[in-house]
Amino acid sequence: MRLATVATPAGSTAAVWQNDAWRALPAPDLSSLLASGADWGVGDALPDAVPVLPLPRPGKVICCGLNYGDHIAETGRETPTHPTLFAKYADTLIGPHDDIVLPAGLEVDWEAELAVVVGATLRNATAAEAEQAIAGYTVANDISVRDWQRRTLQWFQGKAWDATTPIGPVLVTPDDLDPTAGVEVVCRVNGVERQRGDTKTLVFDSAALLAYISTFTVLRPGDVVLTGTPGGVGMGMTPPTYLRDGDVVETEIASIGTLTNTVRFTH
Amino acid sequence: MRLATVATPAGSTAAVWQNDAWRALPAPDLSSLLASGADWGVGDALPDAVPVLPLPRPGKVICCGLNYGDHIAETGRETPTHPTLFAKYADTLIGPHDDIVLPAGLEVDWEAELAVVVGATLRNATAAEAEQAIAGYTVANDISVRDWQRRTLQWFQGKAWDATTPIGPVLVTPDDLDPTAGVEVVCRVNGVERQRGDTKTLVFDSAALLAYISTFTVLRPGDVVLTGTPGGVGMGMTPPTYLRDGDVVETEIASIGTLTNTVRFTH
Repeated sequence: MRLATVATPAGSTAAVWQNDAWRALPAPDLSSLLASGADWGVGDALPDAVPVLPLPRPGKVICCGLNYGDHIAETGRETPTHPTLFAKYADTLIGPHDDIVLPAGLEVDWEAELAVVVGATLRNATAAEAEQAIAGYTVANDISVRDWQRRTLQWFQGKAWDATTPIGPVLVTPDDLDPTAGVEVVCRVNGVERQRGDTKTLVFDSAALLAYISTFTVLRPGDVVLTGTPGGVGMGMTPPTYLRDGDVVETEIASIGTLTNTVRFTH
Repeated sequence: MRLATVATPAGSTAAVWQNDAWRALPAPDLSSLLASGADWGVGDALPDAVPVLPLPRPGKVICCGLNYGDHIAETGRETPTHPTLFAKYADTLIGPHDDIVLPAGLEVDWEAELAVVVGATLRNATAAEAEQAIAGYTVANDISVRDWQRRTLQWFQGKAWDATTPIGPVLVTPDDLDPTAGVEVVCRVNGVERQRGDTKTLVFDSAALLAYISTFTVLRPGDVVLTGTPGGVGMGMTPPTYLRDGDVVETEIASIGTLTNTVRFTH
């Protein structure tokens, strides 16, 4: 099943893809739909529906760093025994085709990621319980301001710039997608492939991350966890290469969809 | 002016201290009051009013590390040129007399702090603009799970345990308190003083922190920034000393009030 928040000429709504059309679900967006927990009556087909930011206001957006075997090897580190976690706010999120708008002069980098969306309340969950609570998977790019990320020991200030994290275009439910079996996460900049990783090499898979996080904080329907990025970020290139004004970043998981976002620097 | 969220026999309400009594303000709590922005009509005196968690649902709780001159010197570091920032969620917050409940076996430490509460929307603010947007000051203890904090490079997982960060008991408005002129932040454990720092030694004062944060993310009324802790945490003792079941943590800024919280370990 493919779910989305779609814009239509009559306004935005949660929607499900059935019989070659987006059909209305009874909520204004997927954040509301997942929080409602109600049975979802499927409405009529929606003409001219376009997926937009699927989850406009998750209470928590938690990110995992250093989670792909190849990226860890590339940085010369050992396989971690615990996930490296940091937080973002919902204000960071933008839709699948929105511009990434930032002041000029920053070192702006890409990080293509699989994101897992929580479907039920989780606290002190086992991995098996966490797996049952997954609402679905989507694509994200944890666009990072590297110079601010490196200013101090804590990455937060390089990761929490408002309106810089594209996510979407749709949410694919677990009955239709199993990232532990392997899906490829790809990033292209101006059409040139920069990252390609397989989620089957994740040190901590989606269920493991949700269970671990739920040890210290409650996860609720609509919360989002970004599962980390594979090797190939701009910071790791020789010389380090960052995004320029007008660059087009494509972030793709073939079985979910592609984010296409243009970088716009303000002066 | 002293503001609080108070519990009364008739329910909770925002309140202001006037003529030796808490008097009702037209909102269920200070989060709602600050978000409303409306003129505050002061109601009748409230008998048996007791301050509780003042801000039940800030959108953002952002913390600054390494901000007191003495604490920085103690760790052998240089004076930082940028504030070290990390995020918590509203789920971490508890009231001024609530128990700190955690599973047994963790290395639980104290961090007494001055907290600044945002009163107006801020983005790309100057320090002067940020100063005008301060709703007030309160007391917090950034109780930290050190073993989890040290598991990875990012502190978040040691700082984001639900219901472990006491805050309150009241909010003192800037016309009645100027931390840049110096207020002492004190922590006692079972009556023994462990921390005492003066906010005039802060490397980044409240307005500087709000302005810096507003460079990358919007701050809204009711958001909270913890300004860092002075020297004297348990992790820095010889040998390192952590909280035990039944320990009483008192966190005090004399001109604001005292948090008194008992540690309770579950098994």
